Amino acid sequence: MNVDLNSDLGESFGAYTIGRDADIIPLVSSVNIACGMHAGDPVVMRRTVHRAQEAGVALGAHPGYPDLQGFGRRNMALSPDEAYAYVLYQVGALQAFCHAEGAVLHHVKPHGQLYNTAAKDPALAEAIAAAVHDADAGLVLVALAGSELARAGRAADLRVAEEFFADRTYTDEGTLMSRKEPNAVIADEAFAAKRALRAVQTGTIESANGTPIHVAADTICTHGDNDRALAFVRLLRKTFAEAGIEVAPA
Amino acid sequence: MNVDLNSDLGESFGAYTIGRDADIIPLVSSVNIACGMHAGDPVVMRRTVHRAQEAGVALGAHPGYPDLQGFGRRNMALSPDEAYAYVLYQVGALQAFCHAEGAVLHHVKPHGQLYNTAAKDPALAEAIAAAVHDADAGLVLVALAGSELARAGRAADLRVAEEFFADRTYTDEGTLMSRKEPNAVIADEAFAAKRALRAVQTGTIESANGTPIHVAADTICTHGDNDRALAFVRLLRKTFAEAGIEVAPA
Amino acid sequence: MNVDLNSDLGESFGAYTIGRDADIIPLVSSVNIACGMHAGDPVVMRRTVHRAQEAGVALGAHPGYPDLQGFGRRNMALSPDEAYAYVLYQVGALQAFCHAEGAVLHHVKPHGQLYNTAAKDPALAEAIAAAVHDADAGLVLVALAGSELARAGRAADLRVAEEFFADRTYTDEGTLMSRKEPNAVIADEAFAAKRALRAVQTGTIESANGTPIHVAADTICTHGDNDRALAFVRLLRKTFAEAGIEVAPA
Amino acid sequence: MNVDLNSDLGESFGAYTIGRDADIIPLVSSVNIACGMHAGDPVVMRRTVHRAQEAGVALGAHPGYPDLQGFGRRNMALSPDEAYAYVLYQVGALQAFCHAEGAVLHHVKPHGQLYNTAAKDPALAEAIAAAVHDADAGLVLVALAGSELARAGRAADLRVAEEFFADRTYTDEGTLMSRKEPNAVIADEAFAAKRALRAVQTGTIESANGTPIHVAADTICTHGDNDRALAFVRLLRKTFAEAGIEVAPA
Repeated sequence: MNVDLNSDLGESFGAYTIGRDADIIPLVSSVNIACGMHAGDPVVMRRTVHRAQEAGVALGAHPGYPDLQGFGRRNMALSPDEAYAYVLYQVGALQAFCHAEGAVLHHVKPHGQLYNTAAKDPALAEAIAAAVHDADAGLVLVALAGSELARAGRAADLRVAEEFFADRTYTDEGTLMSRKEPNAVIADEAFAAKRALRAVQTGTIESANGTPIHVAADTICTHGDNDRALAFVRLLRKTFAEAGIEVAPA
Repeated sequence: MNVDLNSDLGESFGAYTIGRDADIIPLVSSVNIACGMHAGDPVVMRRTVHRAQEAGVALGAHPGYPDLQGFGRRNMALSPDEAYAYVLYQVGALQAFCHAEGAVLHHVKPHGQLYNTAAKDPALAEAIAAAVHDADAGLVLVALAGSELARAGRAADLRVAEEFFADRTYTDEGTLMSRKEPNAVIADEAFAAKRALRAVQTGTIESANGTPIHVAADTICTHGDNDRALAFVRLLRKTFAEAGIEVAPA
Repeated sequence: MNVDLNSDLGESFGAYTIGRDADIIPLVSSVNIACGMHAGDPVVMRRTVHRAQEAGVALGAHPGYPDLQGFGRRNMALSPDEAYAYVLYQVGALQAFCHAEGAVLHHVKPHGQLYNTAAKDPALAEAIAAAVHDADAGLVLVALAGSELARAGRAADLRVAEEFFADRTYTDEGTLMSRKEPNAVIADEAFAAKRALRAVQTGTIESANGTPIHVAADTICTHGDNDRALAFVRLLRKTFAEAGIEVAPA
Repeated sequence: MNVDLNSDLGESFGAYTIGRDADIIPLVSSVNIACGMHAGDPVVMRRTVHRAQEAGVALGAHPGYPDLQGFGRRNMALSPDEAYAYVLYQVGALQAFCHAEGAVLHHVKPHGQLYNTAAKDPALAEAIAAAVHDADAGLVLVALAGSELARAGRAADLRVAEEFFADRTYTDEGTLMSRKEPNAVIADEAFAAKRALRAVQTGTIESANGTPIHVAADTICTHGDNDRALAFVRLLRKTFAEAGIEVAPA
């Protein structure tokens, strides 16, 4: 039994540094590399692909909205044709850096609001799935478990990795609790780690209300921004190791 | 005996239109498509690749400086590492649109000041050649005839197409006469067409001073901005046809 | 009795040209000049301010979303603080060009989706009104007649010019008919001109359903993109002149 | 007797943070605030103006090349008209934030390569000086001591503050030693502080060769990037205080 741990990185830009890429890479099995629209730049992409390739993790593209100032976190009303073209552009750019390093791009995970909006908007989801398919039909599409994007990926004959958020609570419908709700984030890390293990082992966890819900957990989103986030990733690894579950790309 | 006629296109951006792409495509054998840094955007790239692929011309990438406001015509002091990464990024993005259309990228021609500076600066030329090679070692690099970029391309084991400018005069050293000189551009189009034919047939033309000089002419740069430019391309085609020289990709 | 005719211009960018600024300036009493986020650049702003100042029209700022690729026509989820800062930035930049030409900025009209969203969203409307007020409390704010933005402008003690769209139909509630409806745009220009005259003279027109509705018409939006648009502006001028209504800044 | 200590700040952008603005503001008498082209964004500009105004330091604009990816440190071949328009745009944007906070912009100091190139290039220097003058003829222009920019500022009837670099060595001609030279930066901070005191008191220091040279020192450039830089600013303050020299805006 396997689980993938993924993390977003390569988000620095020019003179600006974000993230502790060197710390998080050894702890995960997949990385999602920013592609220059919401974060990252070509120099950073090259360096990040090189580092990730050396570490042996699966290389993914992390395309976002064309909004550096908003870090891809502000919704933008793109037409499906625009979304298709922006995603294909970003994925292609990253494929070239992979090719130059002798690597092959493994997966694509949309960033921020592009990910969130595509989880609910079928037209956007289909545009993204089509772009990923047209870049390389063998790519894995990482999508929120149970989302429109996951559905669109399968409809486009892509392999889909459904993503679980270890530190977030879920509604009775199996969607992420909005960050506007006070209980959206789980503070108790030991509980969060055990819940993640149940998600991987059984596909069933409790919603914020205590209702049993189904969640897929092919891959788990992790963060490397600060010491506490890194400690939580180590706890997840330990929890999975003790249960005999291997951390490996989806 | 063959000659390639190439033209820059796909330079529109969002609501902004530049160029008469539909008029020039049927007249040339190769197109150089802007890649989003100095001009072009992902939506335009997709449309342009589709059109060019339908027309059966050879598809090329036209990477430039990251300066939309200056249209890539203002010099920028990039380090070789920056130039490598910017070119690889742009070429990769265009490769993805080609792949999505079932096409394969054929060549790369740097744009504007990136082209001009790389003609003289060996470090920049080597960085560009390395990026083109690392994107796809089978790509043709289009470079000013006799330039540092042509030299760097061959040193990187790339196939190089040396470019001739039919409407520009040359110095005794075989370089382009600076546009600051009054006689930089040839006004007499009949003469220009005959000179282009001599360049292709014999590799020898007269400099602005009347000195015989050697010039390679694997590919000839053409423009589709206005009626006069289009008429000149038609004259070139007629001149080559009458001499039994086929217009075909380099 | 007066009416203002306004037009958006200064929307060219670098090598890209949009609009027939020289044709429309002599036909209007106010211009709204793009400020470099959705369109325009500093060189274009300087030239446009100079031209408009020479022509004696009222100078306005036309701030938009920071989205050149979408020309400010795609909605972006800005926080009120972001909207305040983006508008103040753009207005300030244009004020400097006015000051350098010995002119004073007269009004501000938000562009595209910023204008449309602010017509309905009170928090965005208040942020924009506050930015305009903080740039210069004497500025006129141009807003859709009856909109949240008009209300927010008055609440911020700004003078507000309510804008009428001569070529668009209105709902029974007095709002613009969505462009998705087949009858959103009036094809009959003679009718449109007469309706505009009624709006200015009586403040009452018929909705698309024929219901009498109130509309303010301090200023009328005009376009200079093509011959037909320019002809319609001339028809409006003739219609107002025959009715003894002067075309003058709001 | 007075000396001004200035520092560049407000260089964060969106989600990206650079600089320890809160630490350096209390140690200086003037700040130079990035204006959104090479660094900074409207939200950051507003916050920075507010902080600096509260602290009572003199507010300056810090315009740079339009190159966020290069942080304004890469040379760009701008025409004088472009440079004029870009500087006026940036200064105007910052003036609006000052006006909104009840402050008045005090000075302008170009950033990075714009500053360095303008020190040597008379046409660029004159364009910058004209833009500063046209924004507000009462502004102080901060320029490298003895530079073309200082000269152009005086020719444009601006008050000029000549800037001294406390941690850099000078050539016999009184220009900054190139950073490519091994002895460009002074490692001995006690010596650097004493030399700065001599520059302010006598206008004469030794070049790197030991030759006495004249240097103006109306204002001294300081940095707040790290603990050592902050400690050096404190040493400068102590050195000036012990000599009875007041730290105050130029």
